[in-house]
Amino acid sequence: MVNTLYLPELREMLAENREGELREFCTALHPARTAEFMEGLSTDEAWRVLAFADPSTRAQIFTYFEHHRQLELIETQDRDQVAAILSELPSDDRVDVLADAPNELVEELLKRLPADERRDIQRLSQYPEGTAGATMTSDFARIPETMTVKQALDELARQAESLEMLYYLYVLDEAGHLRGVVSTRQLVAAMRRPLTPLTELMETQLVSVHALDDREEVAQLVARYDLLAVPVVDDQNRMVGIVTHDDVLDVLQDEAARDAYQSAAVAPLEETYLRTPLLILSWKRGIWLAILFVCALLTVLVLGRYEDDLQRWAWLVPFLPLIISSGGNSGNQSATLVITALGRGEVKLSDWGTVVIREVAMGLILGLVLSAMGVVVSFLFAPVGIERWVIPVTLILVVVSGTLTGATLPLIFARLGWDPAIMSNPFVAGIVDILGIVIYMTVAYLILGSVGG
Amino acid sequence: MVNTLYLPELREMLAENREGELREFCTALHPARTAEFMEGLSTDEAWRVLAFADPSTRAQIFTYFEHHRQLELIETQDRDQVAAILSELPSDDRVDVLADAPNELVEELLKRLPADERRDIQRLSQYPEGTAGATMTSDFARIPETMTVKQALDELARQAESLEMLYYLYVLDEAGHLRGVVSTRQLVAAMRRPLTPLTELMETQLVSVHALDDREEVAQLVARYDLLAVPVVDDQNRMVGIVTHDDVLDVLQDEAARDAYQSAAVAPLEETYLRTPLLILSWKRGIWLAILFVCALLTVLVLGRYEDDLQRWAWLVPFLPLIISSGGNSGNQSATLVITALGRGEVKLSDWGTVVIREVAMGLILGLVLSAMGVVVSFLFAPVGIERWVIPVTLILVVVSGTLTGATLPLIFARLGWDPAIMSNPFVAGIVDILGIVIYMTVAYLILGSVGG
Repeated sequence: MVNTLYLPELREMLAENREGELREFCTALHPARTAEFMEGLSTDEAWRVLAFADPSTRAQIFTYFEHHRQLELIETQDRDQVAAILSELPSDDRVDVLADAPNELVEELLKRLPADERRDIQRLSQYPEGTAGATMTSDFARIPETMTVKQALDELARQAESLEMLYYLYVLDEAGHLRGVVSTRQLVAAMRRPLTPLTELMETQLVSVHALDDREEVAQLVARYDLLAVPVVDDQNRMVGIVTHDDVLDVLQDEAARDAYQSAAVAPLEETYLRTPLLILSWKRGIWLAILFVCALLTVLVLGRYEDDLQRWAWLVPFLPLIISSGGNSGNQSATLVITALGRGEVKLSDWGTVVIREVAMGLILGLVLSAMGVVVSFLFAPVGIERWVIPVTLILVVVSGTLTGATLPLIFARLGWDPAIMSNPFVAGIVDILGIVIYMTVAYLILGSVGG
Repeated sequence: MVNTLYLPELREMLAENREGELREFCTALHPARTAEFMEGLSTDEAWRVLAFADPSTRAQIFTYFEHHRQLELIETQDRDQVAAILSELPSDDRVDVLADAPNELVEELLKRLPADERRDIQRLSQYPEGTAGATMTSDFARIPETMTVKQALDELARQAESLEMLYYLYVLDEAGHLRGVVSTRQLVAAMRRPLTPLTELMETQLVSVHALDDREEVAQLVARYDLLAVPVVDDQNRMVGIVTHDDVLDVLQDEAARDAYQSAAVAPLEETYLRTPLLILSWKRGIWLAILFVCALLTVLVLGRYEDDLQRWAWLVPFLPLIISSGGNSGNQSATLVITALGRGEVKLSDWGTVVIREVAMGLILGLVLSAMGVVVSFLFAPVGIERWVIPVTLILVVVSGTLTGATLPLIFARLGWDPAIMSNPFVAGIVDILGIVIYMTVAYLILGSVGG
């Protein structure tokens, strides 16, 4: 059911002020789709189109705009109208967009909002980035614990228009403490027993999180328990908001991108690739490249110590990158497998013994395979004689040391309470580079030293 | 609200057959939590505990067991009781566990199921792995288009007990074509107008997917539109199932792990790290290590051609790994940034010009930084004279060629319709290794050749 409306048509409608069609455009599609179609419009044009939507649809379309476009809209358009749209936004989206707006603008806009919404924004903005509190919305269906099924259904019908997520109703006592939860599903199923007290129906064994909990852990909890939303409570167990399934999806996708960046030694981006200014992106990459460069200096020092040997056995030099990359690649594989398994909870710290044994075993198998290929290579490119054994023997040792390093470093980091993903691929590769050089030269010395020396 | 029940207590309850407590254990917690607590039990013990849960809770707990445990349970326990539990499972979970069970067992179990469930299983198992059809459940709330709000609410109450997801009601015509969707939210909001026909309320501009659509694209669609579930239709637009938000989470987490493996040149695992047999894991790693090894042979050939120069200017050798890794690291960064941005739809193929310009610019900035560090290194370790300029000049060229290669290869792959992630970090690093060696030796030749020669 793809709509064939495109930008030129939209511009034409605006130029000719074709009200009916513009209204139709704003309401006919899913708001996410409408927002997509408006992508190419200027800020002013987008604003003019939005005017044809009713306030609630307008706010919904607005939530699907990209962050930078939301900012442009609230910065450039009429303050009163911006305040009106803010008032309709889900509380978490509202806080997100205001967080990056200039201070004077935020103050001006806050002045135009009702007192309770102003307080809500101030309360939500106090939570540090990356916490459940900073991710949650304060719009949730709340029901006093004294109600019956019939009263709750009526209340639900009343709140239905204004709430983002009303598949769970949270039962609170007078002080706002979370007592239990009833799903719309349970309410509907109990419709024929309208006088049943809610307390009889509600689930009291609750999965809840604290406002200062890490958002990634919250997301994984929601994923593990297949929840639509999880209640967020403060220090006094008072309910302050919910983290919903769509926020959880966003968090997990952000974290996946973050992990990908980290595995390539790029500091996490706050914006998309194309929107991150060149100098900021250079900084986020440069700082890590510089650190890796300093680590790689060790290879210069180590190789420098073997300069005489490398002069004597010059045929060893062309194999250097091959040896190094074999160690680095097998180390990367192990590090990625262990980091991913730790992240998904498939491997626990207590499994370290099993992991080490498996990686040594795999290192031996993989080392033997590469070693066999190394024999062929030696017959083609290395000098005749015992020299032919330097490359195969080195390869097997380098691969084992690669898998062992790649697997144990993340485990050690996790044991120390650090993020195992810091032991990203370039670092593992850097360390294995040095090990590889030392192994290569030692093997060469042991085999060739006895010949040449 | 962490429960302090542990394995020993659970075993004690079983030994003493403390029925009340075991019943309490099965129902008091979220089924996911109950399943976690049962992790350490043997298959027989777990089965005995499950006997104390009512059929619906038993099935729910079962869905939270790990896949291998589910298989063990259905393979070892009494056929009739296994069939009873299968009958209660959500249709997608049922198909997933039967897919990996031995054929004779599946036949035996199917015989014990009612005809409609048997047909459902056979229908669902026909979809190829990785499609929407293989991910969907066929348990969804369906309502004829002739109903009113009141009738729909009654029907919902009737279906509420048996369905996994009833936050959307799908309105179907007599032939099973999807006509529209009504959310429970809309129904509850319309409760006071009970005689309103559903057709008046329902949303007809539907987001739907085809049963053979790729499950990752479906997941991204659900994420973009913040849906709880998306309807799946067949070639005739007849509705065959829904993909729900929790399946979407699983798909996205699987795909993130897959991407991580791919970035380290490991073929995707079907099982967890610890459960994948050593030889299978070795194969999934070995095949790629071998391919990368063959690629790396090119570095041997290229360096072999410069053997005389490296003899003459032996001081160049110790810097080789430093040069190579600087190119590889900057190339990895670019490849990861571009692959991630393509995957998230932040960069489109038509942006290739912008991407290339940005990467060249960043290559120059990053190259200048490393080059400046290279000047210091040269003053410390390189011979006095014009020789000092070899390392800094090489570094700047190597970093630019790294960023350019890392950014353009994924774009070219995407342009050819291949998965850009195949251009994983080890491959980019391998290609940049060769470029780095050629650049290094050419720069050395241009600078030193004019001196020495």
